[in-house]
Amino acid sequence: MLYLVGLGLGDATDITVKGLAAVRGCSRVYLEAYTSILTVGKEALEEYYGMPLILADRDLVEQQADEILKDADVTDVAFLVVGDPFGATTHSDLVLRAVHAGIPYKVIHNASIMNAVGCCGLQLYNFGETVSLVFWTETWRPESFYDKICKNRKAGQHTLCLLDIKVKEQSIENMMRGKKIFEPPRFMTVGQAADQLIQIIQRRREEGGELGVTEDTVCVGVARLGADDQLIRTGTLRQLVSCDLGEPLHSLVVTGHLHPLEVDMLRVNAEPDALKDLKSIDSSTFCS
Amino acid sequence: MLYLVGLGLGDATDITVKGLAAVRGCSRVYLEAYTSILTVGKEALEEYYGMPLILADRDLVEQQADEILKDADVTDVAFLVVGDPFGATTHSDLVLRAVHAGIPYKVIHNASIMNAVGCCGLQLYNFGETVSLVFWTETWRPESFYDKICKNRKAGQHTLCLLDIKVKEQSIENMMRGKKIFEPPRFMTVGQAADQLIQIIQRRREEGGELGVTEDTVCVGVARLGADDQLIRTGTLRQLVSCDLGEPLHSLVVTGHLHPLEVDMLRVNAEPDALKDLKSIDSSTFCS
Repeated sequence: MLYLVGLGLGDATDITVKGLAAVRGCSRVYLEAYTSILTVGKEALEEYYGMPLILADRDLVEQQADEILKDADVTDVAFLVVGDPFGATTHSDLVLRAVHAGIPYKVIHNASIMNAVGCCGLQLYNFGETVSLVFWTETWRPESFYDKICKNRKAGQHTLCLLDIKVKEQSIENMMRGKKIFEPPRFMTVGQAADQLIQIIQRRREEGGELGVTEDTVCVGVARLGADDQLIRTGTLRQLVSCDLGEPLHSLVVTGHLHPLEVDMLRVNAEPDALKDLKSIDSSTFCS
Repeated sequence: MLYLVGLGLGDATDITVKGLAAVRGCSRVYLEAYTSILTVGKEALEEYYGMPLILADRDLVEQQADEILKDADVTDVAFLVVGDPFGATTHSDLVLRAVHAGIPYKVIHNASIMNAVGCCGLQLYNFGETVSLVFWTETWRPESFYDKICKNRKAGQHTLCLLDIKVKEQSIENMMRGKKIFEPPRFMTVGQAADQLIQIIQRRREEGGELGVTEDTVCVGVARLGADDQLIRTGTLRQLVSCDLGEPLHSLVVTGHLHPLEVDMLRVNAEPDALKDLKSIDSSTFCS
């Protein structure tokens, strides 16, 4: 059996009781380590589960999946995913390989940023398409996510923006030289995401384009959701550029139409300085 | 402290280790019992947690919330919610009352139908607004959800349809007589939901309206997601009318634009008879 086990968000104890029992009964346990992270590392999980974990990087999952599935028809193998196995990143490819190899699989679900973000006070059923923001490079500055956010907002919907994670990346120089030297991991912050959005807004304003989202749009930055030290900060996009929400992971929500109950919840979660500004925001800004 | 603890989907062991520890440390534990159910009842949860549970019906949560929050500033109280506390139904009102009473609160997240539905093979980030289908009565046959589904589909997005639950409902006769006699609980099935959608389609066709969703639209019925006996059945809306997915809870997904990987996953999860029909569906139906 292949178990796809969601670890939830936060630390080692966010696994479900069912998930923990499955993990402890497996002969091999892989930890997917390239699309998300918990606030604790591999060692803490190993100690808690009482099991050694095999780190599964993108290369192993995408190129050498057969290694993960080896003997899974006669023994139990677990594939651990931060959040839910079918959350922000789906592991359909691994499931399809298992199915085609005649290996039964079982999903043990858990919270994902895709549903846990509801705790900021915005109602989940009112979210539109989720977007991803990637780190820009000198030559690659995609803007398509901005249009998707505007499209959601025009339809009154909130947008969850998942922020880029770079782990085990090689510099172009090291890649060309074939050196397996990896850059330090990078995690996009709410401030960086807000800054990127504002750059797009400014560029489009200069071009005279219509702006569905501006510097004054109310947004919510969330950090380490589900962990004891989680932070939720509500403010205008301009305010969020300079906020420091600390350690990863961060996500950003751009609001759409706001229900009065959502506004009340946003105020609860706003940091004192943002709260001051929020109070001054005319309710028409919220409930446009 | 007020703990809002998600129980996940399935049975007693779908609670997280963190959630279970919180529950066992509380002096009072409420079980929210009107928006969703697990495959096991209150007694099984009480036995597993080793704690008595107080059933919280809509009346208690909405009209007598102060009873739930009583002394929560000096003792720990847990409020258990099937799925995630901020999933399909948000409990913002209870949180706001706690905040205004100066009671700290903590959310312990878990899987919700809003993210676990991803296991059917459709990618979560491509879902549009979630809709709810209610049981029609003689005099009340709302259709607005159909327009929302069509709007999502036009934008290429899938739609999660949450199906009605009626628990602790009084008949009009008993209500008028002030008799606290409740009707047996009712849970809308995938078949009933599909039938309701088809009735709308037929009515609108007669009126000559444009149809964003028809009897041939590919849909996915899911039942008891997260439980050992979960069922996922993919087929056209017409096929799903006659499917029997067994015990509650059921949900329905109406697909939008399908990525080839999503089609592959849908085929895996299709029941043999639906699979036969799916094979005959031209890929343009899927990937329109």
